[in-house]
Formats: sequence, C-alpha cells, structure tokens
Amino acid sequence: MLTINSTTIEDTFAEAFPMTAARLIVTATTLEWALTAAREATGYAASVIGCDAEAGIERVLPPDETPDGRPGVSWLLFAFNREGLAKAAVNRVGQCILTCATTACYNGLPVVKDKAIRIGGVLRFFGDGFQASKKLDDRRYWRVPVMDGEFTCEDLFGTVKGVAGGNFLILGESQTAALAAAEAARDAIQGVSGVILPFPGGVVRSGSKVGSRYKQLRASTNDAYCPSLRGLVASALPDNVHAVYEIVIDGLDLESVERATRAGVEAACRPGVVRISAGNYGGNLGPYHLRLHELMRDVDVTPRPPA
Amino acid sequence: MLTINSTTIEDTFAEAFPMTAARLIVTATTLEWALTAAREATGYAASVIGCDAEAGIERVLPPDETPDGRPGVSWLLFAFNREGLAKAAVNRVGQCILTCATTACYNGLPVVKDKAIRIGGVLRFFGDGFQASKKLDDRRYWRVPVMDGEFTCEDLFGTVKGVAGGNFLILGESQTAALAAAEAARDAIQGVSGVILPFPGGVVRSGSKVGSRYKQLRASTNDAYCPSLRGLVASALPDNVHAVYEIVIDGLDLESVERATRAGVEAACRPGVVRISAGNYGGNLGPYHLRLHELMRDVDVTPRPPA
Amino acid sequence: MLTINSTTIEDTFAEAFPMTAARLIVTATTLEWALTAAREATGYAASVIGCDAEAGIERVLPPDETPDGRPGVSWLLFAFNREGLAKAAVNRVGQCILTCATTACYNGLPVVKDKAIRIGGVLRFFGDGFQASKKLDDRRYWRVPVMDGEFTCEDLFGTVKGVAGGNFLILGESQTAALAAAEAARDAIQGVSGVILPFPGGVVRSGSKVGSRYKQLRASTNDAYCPSLRGLVASALPDNVHAVYEIVIDGLDLESVERATRAGVEAACRPGVVRISAGNYGGNLGPYHLRLHELMRDVDVTPRPPA
Amino acid sequence: MLTINSTTIEDTFAEAFPMTAARLIVTATTLEWALTAAREATGYAASVIGCDAEAGIERVLPPDETPDGRPGVSWLLFAFNREGLAKAAVNRVGQCILTCATTACYNGLPVVKDKAIRIGGVLRFFGDGFQASKKLDDRRYWRVPVMDGEFTCEDLFGTVKGVAGGNFLILGESQTAALAAAEAARDAIQGVSGVILPFPGGVVRSGSKVGSRYKQLRASTNDAYCPSLRGLVASALPDNVHAVYEIVIDGLDLESVERATRAGVEAACRPGVVRISAGNYGGNLGPYHLRLHELMRDVDVTPRPPA
Repeated sequence: MLTINSTTIEDTFAEAFPMTAARLIVTATTLEWALTAAREATGYAASVIGCDAEAGIERVLPPDETPDGRPGVSWLLFAFNREGLAKAAVNRVGQCILTCATTACYNGLPVVKDKAIRIGGVLRFFGDGFQASKKLDDRRYWRVPVMDGEFTCEDLFGTVKGVAGGNFLILGESQTAALAAAEAARDAIQGVSGVILPFPGGVVRSGSKVGSRYKQLRASTNDAYCPSLRGLVASALPDNVHAVYEIVIDGLDLESVERATRAGVEAACRPGVVRISAGNYGGNLGPYHLRLHELMRDVDVTPRPPA
Repeated sequence: MLTINSTTIEDTFAEAFPMTAARLIVTATTLEWALTAAREATGYAASVIGCDAEAGIERVLPPDETPDGRPGVSWLLFAFNREGLAKAAVNRVGQCILTCATTACYNGLPVVKDKAIRIGGVLRFFGDGFQASKKLDDRRYWRVPVMDGEFTCEDLFGTVKGVAGGNFLILGESQTAALAAAEAARDAIQGVSGVILPFPGGVVRSGSKVGSRYKQLRASTNDAYCPSLRGLVASALPDNVHAVYEIVIDGLDLESVERATRAGVEAACRPGVVRISAGNYGGNLGPYHLRLHELMRDVDVTPRPPA
Repeated sequence: MLTINSTTIEDTFAEAFPMTAARLIVTATTLEWALTAAREATGYAASVIGCDAEAGIERVLPPDETPDGRPGVSWLLFAFNREGLAKAAVNRVGQCILTCATTACYNGLPVVKDKAIRIGGVLRFFGDGFQASKKLDDRRYWRVPVMDGEFTCEDLFGTVKGVAGGNFLILGESQTAALAAAEAARDAIQGVSGVILPFPGGVVRSGSKVGSRYKQLRASTNDAYCPSLRGLVASALPDNVHAVYEIVIDGLDLESVERATRAGVEAACRPGVVRISAGNYGGNLGPYHLRLHELMRDVDVTPRPPA
Repeated sequence: MLTINSTTIEDTFAEAFPMTAARLIVTATTLEWALTAAREATGYAASVIGCDAEAGIERVLPPDETPDGRPGVSWLLFAFNREGLAKAAVNRVGQCILTCATTACYNGLPVVKDKAIRIGGVLRFFGDGFQASKKLDDRRYWRVPVMDGEFTCEDLFGTVKGVAGGNFLILGESQTAALAAAEAARDAIQGVSGVILPFPGGVVRSGSKVGSRYKQLRASTNDAYCPSLRGLVASALPDNVHAVYEIVIDGLDLESVERATRAGVEAACRPGVVRISAGNYGGNLGPYHLRLHELMRDVDVTPRPPA
C-alpha cells in the first residue's frame, strides 16, 4: 500500500486519449491585457464533448520570452482532429484576440509540413485588402489594420498529437478538505509547462460515467462517487469520504501529463484527504495509462524543516 | 458644440438592436469560485456574429442578495431569439456551472408564461434518475447529485427583450491615452446594473463595417477609423487622433444602456481624448437610437474639490 | 444552547475597547492605483500593541461616491488617542499616499471642532511654499505640486471614539475547515460599512493571553487555545477541535462592530466548525461587551432554496 | 545622443547608497496566504526617511523552491544598519507573519558569523516556554505554538550590504503616457531577482530635493520637475513634458540594481515618453553611480516580428 502524508494512493490508473493540440502566444502592451485576451479565448472550453475545444492558460511569459518583447501568455487548445482544431482556433482568435486591445498572436510550437494549421492567413481577410505580410526567419506574420493600430497574427501554427483526459480523483473527509486539496493540486500543476486544466478553476465536481437510463444521453453522473447516493447505489466511497473532486489534465505529450499528475497528487495528499484515485474505462478505450503507483513511487522524502 | 473636459462629443447616435436576454445567478461557497464559474460561462461570447451568444458578468452579489445566502455573481446572456438563448444557456450552464466546484444556479428575472426558458429542467437528466426537485414560493429547483454533493439549478429562467449593440467610440491622441480612457469608461460602467460589456476586457479595437471586397465576408475592418490607413482611404479621424477604441454595451432595457453610455462617456472624457463618437448604420437597421448629445446634455457640472 | 447550522455558539462575550478613529478616502485615476495606495497605507498596522496604529480598508467607492468623482477606497485608522492618531495619519499619508501616482486624500467623517486632526495642513509644507489652498463648502483642500501634477489633501479630518477589539473565535475540526470558515467570515464582513479587520487577511492565528513567564513580555501565546499543547496545559478546546482562528474587528461605533460580528459568525457556522467563542478579560477591562447569544438570537431562519 | 524607440536617454547617472539588507521567505498553505502575509509585512515601508525600513516583495516562489515545500514569497528588507534592520525585521515578522494564518518564515541569504540577525530566536518567547527548536543542516528553527498549530521561524537571518536608491525618471508628454510607461517599467523589473521597488505600486510621483524654505524640513518637493511650476521656477522639464514618474530600486548588490535599471528603462522607452533621466546629488553623497548611457549602450536591437 502506498501512502503519502497519510493519504492512501489507490493502485489504479488514469486512462488518457490522443487529441490534436496547438500552443498560442498572445502578447499585449500590458500583462493584464494579454491575460484578458487569453481568458476570453479559453472560456467555455471545458470539455470537447460539449464545447468546440478544450482550452486553458499554460503560463505567463515575461517580455524576454515572447516574440515581440512584450508581456505575454501562452495558452493551449485541444480538439479531436486537426480540422476541428483549425476551426476552433480561427474562431476563438478572431472573436477573442483580434478584438482585444493591443494584442498580437504568435505560434508556440514547431511548424512541421502538413501538420500546421492556418490562423493569420485566414483572419487576414478581415483587413479588406489593407492587410500586409512580413517574413522573418522563415515565418510569415500578417498585419491587419484595426482601430488601435494593427493586429499581428502569425500565418501558420504548429500542431502536435497531445494527450487529453489525464486525471486523478481526490476523496476527502469533507467538501472543505477536498476542495482545499484540489486547489493545492491545481496551484502545484500551474508550475508544470506543457499542460492545462481545462475545467473551471482547474477542478471538476461532476464526474460522469458512460451511459444513462435516458436514451438520448451518452453520459450521466458517476453515481458510485456521489456522496449523497451512498445508500442508494453501490458506492465506491469509503465511509469517511464526503466529497470528491477530479483534476483533469490535457498536455502536449505524455511526459508533461505525468509530471503534472505527480505534482498534483503530491500537493493533494494533505490532512482530510482519505484517498487518491483515478478514472479509467477498464483500459480498453484510451491508449495512455498513467498508473498512480508508478508515478508516485519516487516522491521525494528528504527531511525538511518544519512548516 | 458639446464638450466635456475639453473632449468634443460628436452630434451622432448609436444604433442598437433587440436581443433576447436572461440573467443567471451563480453562487458558490466562496466568491472566488462563483467568479470562476461565471468567467468560464461568459467566455468566448464577444459577438453573436461569431459566438453562440453574447455574455458578461453584470455584478458581484453579497450573500444577503442571493437566493441561497452564499456569495454570488449575476451574469447576462443575449441571443437573437429565445430558442438560441435556451440552447446557449443550457450548454453554458452544463459545461461551466454544473462542472464547477460548489456552485448553484438561479434565475434572476421575473418568470412570465411562454417567455421562460428551461435550464434546470433539462440539465436534471444528468442525474440519471437520482435527481430530485423541490418547490418553494412557486419556483422549482432541481437537485442533481454530483461528486461534491448536489448541483442545484432552478427549473425556469425568465427572459426579456433586451437592447444590444449600444456603443460609443473613443478617439485618442495616442493608443495609451485612448486605452486609459476606455479602461476608465469600462470601470465606470461596472457600477451600472442591467448591462454587460461583452467584448474582452469590455473594450473593442476591431470596429467593423458591413461588407468586404471578399465576397464570403459580410463584415471587414472599419478602414475609415484605422489610423494606419489614414493616407489610403477617406479617413474619419481628425489629424491628431492616432487610436480608437469602442465600448459595446448590451442591456436588459433601453434605459440601462442609456445610463451605461452616460457613465462611460463621462469617464472617457479625459486629457488625450479628442472626441467621442458612436457607431450606426444610418439609422435604418436598429430600432433604438442613442443620441450622444441628448444623453450627455445634463452631465453634472457642480464644482468639485480638486483631484 | 444556541446552534446555527450545527455549530454551537458559546454563551460568552467579546470585550472591546474605545479607540480614536479616522476615515480617510483615497482616490486615483484608476481603482487599481487607489487600492495600491490604500494597501500600502494600511500595511504593518495589525495591532496597536506593536504598530503605530491599526488600519484596514473599509470599502471600495465608485466614482459617484467620492469627492472628486474618481474611483476611490475608504480606509480606517485607529489609535489610542487623538495625538497618536494624528501622528500615524500624517506619516502614513505622507509616506504612502502623497508618494503614490495620481492620488488625492479626503476626509470621510464629520468635522467637529476640537476633535479634528490636521493632515493636509501639515503635509502642505512639502510644497516648499508652492502649495496653495482652496475652500469649497467650508472645507479646505491643500494642493501640493508634485512631479505628476498636484497632490490634493484635505486640511482637517474628523475623528470619532470608535470601538476596537471586537472579536470571535472559530473552533474547527481541522485547520482547513477552520480557515475556510474564517475566510467566509471575513468575506461576509467586507459588506459591512464602518468596520475593518486589522490583521493580515482579516484573520488572526496567534491569540494571546495577558502576561508571560518571561518578565519582559506583557503577552504570550494563549496556550489554552493551542491544539498542540492539549496534553500539557488546561486546554479550552473540545477533543474534536484541532485549529482555532480569531476574527478581530475595529469599528467606528458599537453598532457597526455588532453588525460585523453577526455577519461573520453566521458565515462561519459551517460544516467542520465545532464551536464559536469570543475573547474577553473577565469583563473588567473593556467597557463594551458583545454577547454572542444576544447578537445571534435573531438570525434569519426563513427557508431558502437548496444551495 | 542615445535614443531607444525615439525616447532620449539623458547622459546622467543615478546615485545610490549602501543599506543593510535581509531576504525573508514566507510560506503558507496557499500562495494567497503567503502573499497576504508578505504584503502586510512590506506595507508602510516606502522610504527609510519616514518609515522604520524599506521593504517589498521580491518574487513568488513555487513549492519546489521553498524550504518546506509549500508555496512562498520572498521579500527584502533594507535599513541603515544591522541594528535598525534587526529591530524592523523582528517587529514586522512578529506583527505580520506570526499573526497570519498558516505561515512560516525562513532565511533567504547565507548566514555569515557576526553579520546575521536573530528573528526566530527573539520571537520564540511568545511561546511562553512551550516553544521548541529543531536543527537541520546546521540551521535552527523555532516552533512556537499558536492557535492553528505552530509558527515555524528560522533562528538567524543573513544580511548583506545592499544598494539602495537606484533610480530613473520617466518624463512623459502626459500623465497617462508617463504612468503607462512607469507601469511597464515596474512590470519588467518584477522579473529581475535581488531587487525590490519600495514605493507604492513601484512608482514615485513625489520626487524631492534636499532642503526646504521651512527650517524643520530636510527635504521638499523637487520643484524643477513639477510641471505645474514651470513658469515659477527654473524648470528641468522640456516644453512637451507634462508629467514625471520616478522608479526607485533597492537591491542586494550593485549588479542587480543595474539589471533592474536596464530592464526598466528599456520598457519605459515608449510612445509618449520624451526622455529618461536619473536622480543624483552631484555625485558626492552616494558611492554608487549608475550611468544611464553605459547601462543602456548594449540594448538588444535584433529585428523582431511586428507587435
């Protein structure tokens, strides 16, 4: 049995799936405006089941890490395939970045032939013939006249086969304890590059199972994990568990999702957290299996000063 | 000629349109979580031309102003008609509120027969038969079991014919001056109830005209207001104007949009702002005309202490 | 026995003391700068035992509630007597407001002869003879030339005999539960005008008793409330209490402190909170006694929709 | 003549002084609480002329960079000498960290014999005999019982001879332009380790000259830089300058202050900024001279994509 800070780690695994991903960098005259644009562009993008894409902010970029030397934010976008990704990207950049004061938008992944999607090259038509392009170091940038100057958007954006649906479950003695642990996990994962947490605030409380007693619904509440249904269904919850939160992780590659899982689980192992579990479909659906015990085996146990 | 603090108010009008609107109240165990849910639910909702709806946060609600006595946020949602509104509302609440830790969702408008949309009554099926309803003071609330307890969502939400597309333009001597004025206008409008600013950060920099030289596009950049095109097109900009921002306002009724326009224009009349204008289509499209000179005629001119 | 949401309210009282108080209003070109100034000015002001004053932000003021029509923040300052208050106010305004970009500082209480303190009338000398004054509606404002224009500061500020040291204790099953309740109490009190919470984040974790085994110390840790000392001293903590937080309240009058106590205690009565208590010195030191049972007797019990 | 982005850099220098400095690391159960403590502890610390110390937040520390593996914040404290530093540090940690929910406080500089100050070793007496100490890797930590558990504070904190009063002046065409540049400079400097900006929001608007026509005052407004006094005194301001802001920098060593100056000046060279200058006293008082032309000579001029 594996325990960390008296929290039990279940011997189970998260099942994750491939999704196509892009990294977009938005810059602006201030970090606040770059964040405003990125938040709008990554809104309403919790799950590709109900939204056109999954999206989230990856991290803040200081001026010396952005293409134009201004403060920036990188955000990731995931969709089922490249066509869906291109459509969501063009519309989200067009609605949320092009419209937003002082912003520019750059590609944040290597461009590989036949794997890139066109964003600036589509949005340029908004310029009504007054757009111009500039090439620098083999990359093309479109400059579209707008009311506060010009909107610069890179022509092509690289894509990769990413890994979506990484996850773990936090089983807590109370809602307060489980939520505090979920927040700690989210905060710890914010330091990991290459991943996002697509759900609101990085936390999910509506875990679902496949299928439903209503034919038109393909998914419904995961009753085995609902504390209020403990007497009515075959519950998966120990007696002292009264609330569960899930952390869902999308990443640019498997290793990033693994690192995020490790950081998140370690932070979630706190007083009031009974157990850490993970969600899977028996292992038959998703090609990626993230085994909690393997991931957490080597957590650092060097003695530390008291906290 | 009307001037406020040495800024000229053009004798023109904003042209606004009817749109169907709902007010949703999200509460949570903390204000931060209520805000997280509301931000996600109102993301990617700048313009109904490119998004499924226009949305924004109306205001923060202290615990004694919410149905369940918890901290809350009210947000507004606008669509072309009631069917579109219902669809956007159900999907946004399902993806962004139902999923979000500790939240509940209540109706914030009077329910009138045949004018209400059903939200809780649709989302309840996620409960897979374990949902329950409770009636209090003639309103029905659905309780759907989730992993952190229950998600409460009101059954019916009232709608009204709102007023969308209220606007004004801030013509500044520089991008910095115009943007500072736009931020001041936005901040002033945040105190007005019944309205939202649907664009990112409450400000638009990509004003558009109807039509384009590309047949597939119905709108394109408003070249007459682009400072970089001054030499190339018939510019609407005075020589000393080098950046323009637009504030777009959606409201539950005409009077709210008028109050917001007044508060916003007054705040925008600052050093570095040459002129305030407004956008219209000649007056033939939208039934609502907001004339700047009429709205701003009675601005308070009581002497104030020095600032 | 009085219980609210299954939390027991002890039949005890908080003992509070008179302190002299002022209300200062800082305005700026944006709310952010007004908040920046107010946060700096109210820093390092947790307890008048160790600092020159107790201070905190009372609330944000929209432009139409400030003297100069700009966004503002009101903050309160408490000291043992008027001389101490004047000294702390002049130095804090001089160091933290006069220096801060675009700010002005106004009096927020009625001015009564012989009870006012002079702030602008002292700081004006920084103008080195170039300062000027202006009178409006019987109030004098000093205008001091600075590098970004002029610093406006009102001459006189009213004072009142306020009530300091209002308090209550939150006894929780765990640190997480007690802290979440303390945060909820703080957030609820932010809606009450006329009060501040002087300690960092509005919460105290280092409750103290009078006296110490070290002669040079007049106060030391309140061992009866320290969970780690349960086996070593006569503990005041029930067996299932593992963390305690205190909310300390200073107000402009007794009624404000009572309202804040009521709002805070009600919000703190949550799952995981075993008991609410209060701190006193037997009733012999402070003239104000806030009895928890009297204050909480009439808490609203109208049925509410589910949360 | 040196210009960056059309802003002139004056051929002058900033004069800086030695001050004794410490680096304190505060951790907490969440980043928000660590920041709350650090903000309170660094408040009311703009200038050692009027406050007991100069202080500011250096940077946020992710959990894997703090001694106890929790989120943290490092802050710097400066005083005229080691005695003054010790006094300010003990009182600020005692009032603002010891009192603050869930925090711990660690030393962030090498401890050199005879140059360290004692903080935990003084505050431990608050424990009234129940405190305990623990040694790990040659460092001593005090554990003081408090109501939410224990307050851990390191015994000794290293000090260094730092460099205070580094500065530069931003001369803008308008208050809006100068303030936007000052904010950009501040934001750019936040990425530089080893420095703080002690004034509110990192910006000063009340530049002072030595002496005054009032005998009791040793300093007064720097009239040559006040735009409102242009007609009355020998002004140092070009005709098109209407507002000036100063950035004041304190650092752990000269090189950090140089790096911060370079990053800040580069970010401040924007449209609407006429000139960058610096403050000195003829070079006779402070041993450190930071010459703008030398510092800015090698600014990167690689072509960048359009913004």
